[in-house]
Amino acid sequence: MANSTQYVLTNLRVAPMQANGENYGGLIENGAIAIDGETIAWVGPVADIPIDYREWPTRECDGALATPGLIDCHTHIVFGGDRANEFEMRLEGASYEEVARAGGGIISTVKATRTASVEELVADALPRLDALIAEGVTTIEIKSGYGLELESERNMLLAARELGELRDINVRTTFLGAHATPPEFKGRADDYINLVAEEMLPQLHKEGLIDAVDGFCEGIAFSPEQIKVVFNAATKLGLPVKLHAEQLSNLGGASLAASFKALSADHLEYLDEAGVKAMAAAGSTAVLLPGAFYTLRETQMPPVQLLRDHQVPISLATDCNPGSSPLTSLLLTMNMGATLFRMTPDECLAATTRNAAKALGFDDRGTLAVGQRADIALWAIQHPAELSYRIGFNPLKARIFGGKL
Amino acid sequence: MANSTQYVLTNLRVAPMQANGENYGGLIENGAIAIDGETIAWVGPVADIPIDYREWPTRECDGALATPGLIDCHTHIVFGGDRANEFEMRLEGASYEEVARAGGGIISTVKATRTASVEELVADALPRLDALIAEGVTTIEIKSGYGLELESERNMLLAARELGELRDINVRTTFLGAHATPPEFKGRADDYINLVAEEMLPQLHKEGLIDAVDGFCEGIAFSPEQIKVVFNAATKLGLPVKLHAEQLSNLGGASLAASFKALSADHLEYLDEAGVKAMAAAGSTAVLLPGAFYTLRETQMPPVQLLRDHQVPISLATDCNPGSSPLTSLLLTMNMGATLFRMTPDECLAATTRNAAKALGFDDRGTLAVGQRADIALWAIQHPAELSYRIGFNPLKARIFGGKL
Ligand SMILES: [Zn+2]
Ligand SMILES: [Zn+2]
Repeated sequence: MANSTQYVLTNLRVAPMQANGENYGGLIENGAIAIDGETIAWVGPVADIPIDYREWPTRECDGALATPGLIDCHTHIVFGGDRANEFEMRLEGASYEEVARAGGGIISTVKATRTASVEELVADALPRLDALIAEGVTTIEIKSGYGLELESERNMLLAARELGELRDINVRTTFLGAHATPPEFKGRADDYINLVAEEMLPQLHKEGLIDAVDGFCEGIAFSPEQIKVVFNAATKLGLPVKLHAEQLSNLGGASLAASFKALSADHLEYLDEAGVKAMAAAGSTAVLLPGAFYTLRETQMPPVQLLRDHQVPISLATDCNPGSSPLTSLLLTMNMGATLFRMTPDECLAATTRNAAKALGFDDRGTLAVGQRADIALWAIQHPAELSYRIGFNPLKARIFGGKL
Repeated sequence: MANSTQYVLTNLRVAPMQANGENYGGLIENGAIAIDGETIAWVGPVADIPIDYREWPTRECDGALATPGLIDCHTHIVFGGDRANEFEMRLEGASYEEVARAGGGIISTVKATRTASVEELVADALPRLDALIAEGVTTIEIKSGYGLELESERNMLLAARELGELRDINVRTTFLGAHATPPEFKGRADDYINLVAEEMLPQLHKEGLIDAVDGFCEGIAFSPEQIKVVFNAATKLGLPVKLHAEQLSNLGGASLAASFKALSADHLEYLDEAGVKAMAAAGSTAVLLPGAFYTLRETQMPPVQLLRDHQVPISLATDCNPGSSPLTSLLLTMNMGATLFRMTPDECLAATTRNAAKALGFDDRGTLAVGQRADIALWAIQHPAELSYRIGFNPLKARIFGGKL
């Protein structure tokens, strides 16, 4: 059964997650899903199975709930070292300067990443990836951005690709050279941006390592003008863009991203209505990152109601990173979306399936429908609301990746 | 090896967690732990192993970090039904009345609990218990309080005891008849309290089902005077007490509990200095419950600094319950203690080991020291701060319960 090419899952409740106005895309009781190779051939009530599929071998699922495989569309899961020491120092009362003097902050991660080999980066990331896979994640985005020089950025992207070889998961790589100004460019951020746009990006693209291009637009990172230089270069290469925007202040990053038809703008706590409208017009997805909101104890909520009003698709992601979100649970992220951002359980599940697929530019996954990839999570629960209701509990029963159980 | 009576764990880092003023009780590098039956015979650097233990079989631990087995000292893990539906209704904008009309609130859990058999209560609780065990929990407290009548309270306590038989974990049962006024006593809370104190408590104590007695002292629950009636009855029976106090307002519950030499007062967001002093004088432990704080989006922080100043031991627990804290991760609870309550990683680990033992009246567990129970968690991490730093990640490598691996 495990690798058979044609089979039918039976005795399921199905949350198809199409955007049809119904919660969860219209729950199907006593459902079945026919799988042909890597693809979903049919979904519906078991009583309606077309004759074509009735001869296929079946797999009884004990009433499990089927959802699309989860998608974590914003992670920095590849990095060297960790920041537990800095976390501890801060809680023990160390000042920002003391932490910095002890080598803390993003630069400590840059140093650890630069000295790590691809193999070490892979080995360090694997337990984090496995934690996500254990929760039914079947597609993950992984960003570079702790190398901040050609070779180390390449190592991060190679490690990301390698993770996709080692595990049954689809990896999308995002080049985030414009994450921070590296120490050797201190005071010369424009020079660094030019290096990113003119050398690193074209080279790594030529090597086939980049699926999308990202930047960090913030007072503590890069200005909209600097991001624009990177986005122009990406556009010239035909690469889609996305942006860390409006996390700590409103610099108009989301509107800038929208003007480049960005796949997504991410964080968005300080997004205003003009930015929401620009995103809606561009078809960009809003990726909210409650793990960072929680860790940084932010109080400014992202404008969820405005996003709803303007029908901007909302996604949720772990933002897994060693500084502001050392989070490796997408289910907990969904709970945070509900608890902290007041999203409904239906919105939270759409945020990690249908809308997360959109944030990565996929139209072949994120729902359970004919022709979609057979990436499916089976849960030992009654109702999909339980996925965001519970905190720190993993009810995954089985995971199907491209038809493979 | 698994059940041998005498053996030595080697190649460990050890966080002994004694209260000796050092972080983590003084980390031991390249340490070893000798285990004799259910008990720790020796702990120290491997180079110092006394001759008596050198012939014992060894188990190489690959540099794992050893901590005491974790202790979850405040849970309501036994209950019928769940409240995912209510969670969803609220996020979809239902009013308090609409939720109540749909059968929401604590009374929905009381109804589901009353109609469940002991076997059903056990079956429902097992996955939650297993989630905690998977994180290295070796002792758990379980409260009654959703039966609110003799037979159902008995069923809950029987289910709790049964869980301790089914799994390698120590269960402490707490009778929480004074959790809420059941519907049939509406408007007659004093009568219900008398029933709790004069009939339910003595009877269930006679049946050997009660290790401690708890109550919920709050405007929405019972007054200090009502709690006093229950505590007097408990004291007459020689049972220790603890109290849900100062969660939503300051009714002086902690001081009342302290006047009964309570093992602990729990929640404590609104605790004032007088209450802190009373707890310090009584030797009571402060059990903080960040899962409820998080779920209810509270903003009033418990007085952590006052508790430190007056040397009140601080514990953390999941408060696992279907309404205000559907949380089944003690590691996440530790992260919340650090992130939300600004406790240090050392305090967070003491809070789920040494101080959690104290909150349950144990002096035979919660540290790694000679004569203590051999309840040990082995973690695949470098430094104990990682246990509270990470969010939604379980690095447990092995768990030893009473010497049994
Ligand atoms: Zn990010
Ligand atoms: Zn409680």
